[in-house]
Amino acid sequence: MIHPFFNNKGPFKIIDLLKDFNIENIKNLENDLVEDIKDLETADKKHLTFFHSKKYHVHASKTKASYCVTLKNLAHYLPTQCKPICVDNVLLIVSEITSKFYPDAINDNFDVTAKKIEELNFDIKIKFGQNVLVGDNVKFGTNCSIGHNTIIEKNVVIGSNCSIGSNVIIRNTIIEDNVTILDGCIIGKKGFGFFPNNKKNLRYPHIGIVFIGENSEIGCGSTIDRGSMSNTIIGKNTYLDNQIHIAHNNKIGDNCIIAGQVGVAGSSVIGNNVMIGGQAGISGHLKIGNNVQIGGGSGVIRDISANSKVMGYPSKDFRQFLKDNK
Amino acid sequence: MIHPFFNNKGPFKIIDLLKDFNIENIKNLENDLVEDIKDLETADKKHLTFFHSKKYHVHASKTKASYCVTLKNLAHYLPTQCKPICVDNVLLIVSEITSKFYPDAINDNFDVTAKKIEELNFDIKIKFGQNVLVGDNVKFGTNCSIGHNTIIEKNVVIGSNCSIGSNVIIRNTIIEDNVTILDGCIIGKKGFGFFPNNKKNLRYPHIGIVFIGENSEIGCGSTIDRGSMSNTIIGKNTYLDNQIHIAHNNKIGDNCIIAGQVGVAGSSVIGNNVMIGGQAGISGHLKIGNNVQIGGGSGVIRDISANSKVMGYPSKDFRQFLKDNK
Amino acid sequence: MIHPFFNNKGPFKIIDLLKDFNIENIKNLENDLVEDIKDLETADKKHLTFFHSKKYHVHASKTKASYCVTLKNLAHYLPTQCKPICVDNVLLIVSEITSKFYPDAINDNFDVTAKKIEELNFDIKIKFGQNVLVGDNVKFGTNCSIGHNTIIEKNVVIGSNCSIGSNVIIRNTIIEDNVTILDGCIIGKKGFGFFPNNKKNLRYPHIGIVFIGENSEIGCGSTIDRGSMSNTIIGKNTYLDNQIHIAHNNKIGDNCIIAGQVGVAGSSVIGNNVMIGGQAGISGHLKIGNNVQIGGGSGVIRDISANSKVMGYPSKDFRQFLKDNK
Repeated sequence: MIHPFFNNKGPFKIIDLLKDFNIENIKNLENDLVEDIKDLETADKKHLTFFHSKKYHVHASKTKASYCVTLKNLAHYLPTQCKPICVDNVLLIVSEITSKFYPDAINDNFDVTAKKIEELNFDIKIKFGQNVLVGDNVKFGTNCSIGHNTIIEKNVVIGSNCSIGSNVIIRNTIIEDNVTILDGCIIGKKGFGFFPNNKKNLRYPHIGIVFIGENSEIGCGSTIDRGSMSNTIIGKNTYLDNQIHIAHNNKIGDNCIIAGQVGVAGSSVIGNNVMIGGQAGISGHLKIGNNVQIGGGSGVIRDISANSKVMGYPSKDFRQFLKDNK
Repeated sequence: MIHPFFNNKGPFKIIDLLKDFNIENIKNLENDLVEDIKDLETADKKHLTFFHSKKYHVHASKTKASYCVTLKNLAHYLPTQCKPICVDNVLLIVSEITSKFYPDAINDNFDVTAKKIEELNFDIKIKFGQNVLVGDNVKFGTNCSIGHNTIIEKNVVIGSNCSIGSNVIIRNTIIEDNVTILDGCIIGKKGFGFFPNNKKNLRYPHIGIVFIGENSEIGCGSTIDRGSMSNTIIGKNTYLDNQIHIAHNNKIGDNCIIAGQVGVAGSSVIGNNVMIGGQAGISGHLKIGNNVQIGGGSGVIRDISANSKVMGYPSKDFRQFLKDNK
Repeated sequence: MIHPFFNNKGPFKIIDLLKDFNIENIKNLENDLVEDIKDLETADKKHLTFFHSKKYHVHASKTKASYCVTLKNLAHYLPTQCKPICVDNVLLIVSEITSKFYPDAINDNFDVTAKKIEELNFDIKIKFGQNVLVGDNVKFGTNCSIGHNTIIEKNVVIGSNCSIGSNVIIRNTIIEDNVTILDGCIIGKKGFGFFPNNKKNLRYPHIGIVFIGENSEIGCGSTIDRGSMSNTIIGKNTYLDNQIHIAHNNKIGDNCIIAGQVGVAGSSVIGNNVMIGGQAGISGHLKIGNNVQIGGGSGVIRDISANSKVMGYPSKDFRQFLKDNK
């Protein structure tokens, strides 16, 4: 996973990461230094990872991390070099630890570094409208056009030949060449992820980014949230219509066509050449294969295998849907 | 009901309120003075109220109002101190009367009082972006942050430690402490309420406000309309995801979690600890109990009792939904 | 069809329109001059039209066009004065030709002609907020009000007594008298129409406009796309609630009431006095008769005859829906 935009405040001693919690079995680890927190697959030596559900046991057994926050009954899956830190609520502790490594990723207050684009010096020529604001650490390719009142907050890379509309807000996002972002989009905001807690929910950091592949187009008023521990990805040459919501951690493939008002809940993986009709909804944590067609208004709550055509709520085989609804 | 933001132009003589209509039985009331118009429960002495449907007969029988616009066949429910004004179309007449008391509440033209925040003097320190506009009668708590291009129109109270994003528009709203409003929200606009009429619909005033309880969060691009004769309320520690629409007069409880693109039609009451999945829709005038869970994509058209878990369109018991759709 | 806003770069010789394609049967037409490209019904002498599906054969047989891009097996439907230009992919060629006539209609980069409204001279008095931008070729009627940060891009006509909210973007649109456009709307953007093509989709021009009839109201955050080869029309006294999406080429009648989050896919025709409940979706290319009522959450995938009341996904007779879902 790439998370180029959030500064890692590490390394930290384990004792400093966990001192607010009452954790028993870390006595002899207390002074070990941890350099970063990553997921099971991308974590490396001196990194801390986390393992909260048995369904990830294969990844867990192969992790290269030196430390892993996990449950007592899952610890035995970890390889020998990976020292378990057993807790009762893995995700809560991980949230706290991630906040220490990446404190800037926990809220989305407006970007105080944003300045009028006229006051900044870019090497290349940019065509821009009135009242355009640009934050720190923003890069543009050649031949870009940025509409009126648009805010490119800090931590954005925009490729060449991109057209950004008016009233757009972008942050923590990498955009490849030849991408069109239409008016009113909000891209790169933190996802809707937090630990529910009576009186006051606990927000956790979103250190992922949004990545939009070349030749893609995002319709007016759409929202694409950045990932929490992984990235939100829109593939190449994928077109989104207006008022679409893509939640955090989703991966959408290449050459997809997604019609108006579609919503995709978090952490789903959608293949290439997928067509989704208007107002369809895709639940979280699903896998939609390549070349799938989803009819308008569908509610998808289960995985869909490649080359299927489905419709309905919940979605079923398209012919069956028509047959059932003659 | 609180409607602190709209100036009451009363008192009015009844004859002045009703002169445009041909109403028979008010001869001996014509010169009585009416101080305000309120609903059955909150109306007091010298107030006028209205009663248009038998289902409110219990409230009607207990009203403290001195006058009531009602139908001939409902007048007998009113207590003796409350004088009936019998008309054919209660809501139409009420609309006209409310417009006379509250003429400012009938349209939502942009706020001409809004000025650049730099030109205003606030006692407390506010962190604000570029091009922020603030109207008359706006109050901020300590330690607030207001994003770029945001417009706080007149009649807004914002508590302490609130974070308002960029491109937000807020009017006629009270926000408690520690609330987060993300980018692009539009809060406090008049509701979608009017009397349909060929050639030219008749708008009625919305004198209610939006109230958002402490620790809540409103996602990007959401719209929350203010109430007509009562308020629209979002409880404490309730989190809304992106692109949600909350129509006028809804009351949403505490500790609710509402996922992306959900819509709630007007005048529904949603309890505490309610979870609503993405793209679900709740019809108007419903009662959803505490601790209810509503699956994504559901269409709720009937009341739901506390502690239920439902899904489907129309929504039914969750297990039944799964069983019916194996 | 009116498309007053896009300059016709014609006339062109047929050879210049088609030189990039390998088309066999046009030898003796090569130097003929074509003045415009129009659909079968509105095309006139010296115009080129197109005919790509048998279902339009009646219109084809009566077209007044001098030339028609079509398929070999459809050419025989054309009247004798209309010379067929037979190709394999009608819509692709039509897209290329239209781009030559109307090159400005293919993308929606921000309007570089937009200036601060204070810098422009209008004969009539306009009430406007801060940071309002207005492009070339914009006309206002009397007594209009334009909110803060709103952008009226080039090619817009606004009637008298119109109220435009804040953060609104309008282009390529004609608005009649007494229309209200609430905050955050985006009106007149190109539709979601293109030829899917691996690696890089091919956008086609949208030379239609949006037309909004008198006394209508458009709710916050709604998007109405302009037409491709015809116009998108909202009738008179039609009210749209918040977060509605009206795609390109739709025609919506007079006195309609459309609740929040409804979506209408492209090229459908909706009659007068139609009521559509919240979150309902209407598929493309449908015909909905006068006085139809569509329940909230419905998914309409077939034509609906006048005076019907429907609900469901797919929508069916309302009483049947209730009966099936007791």
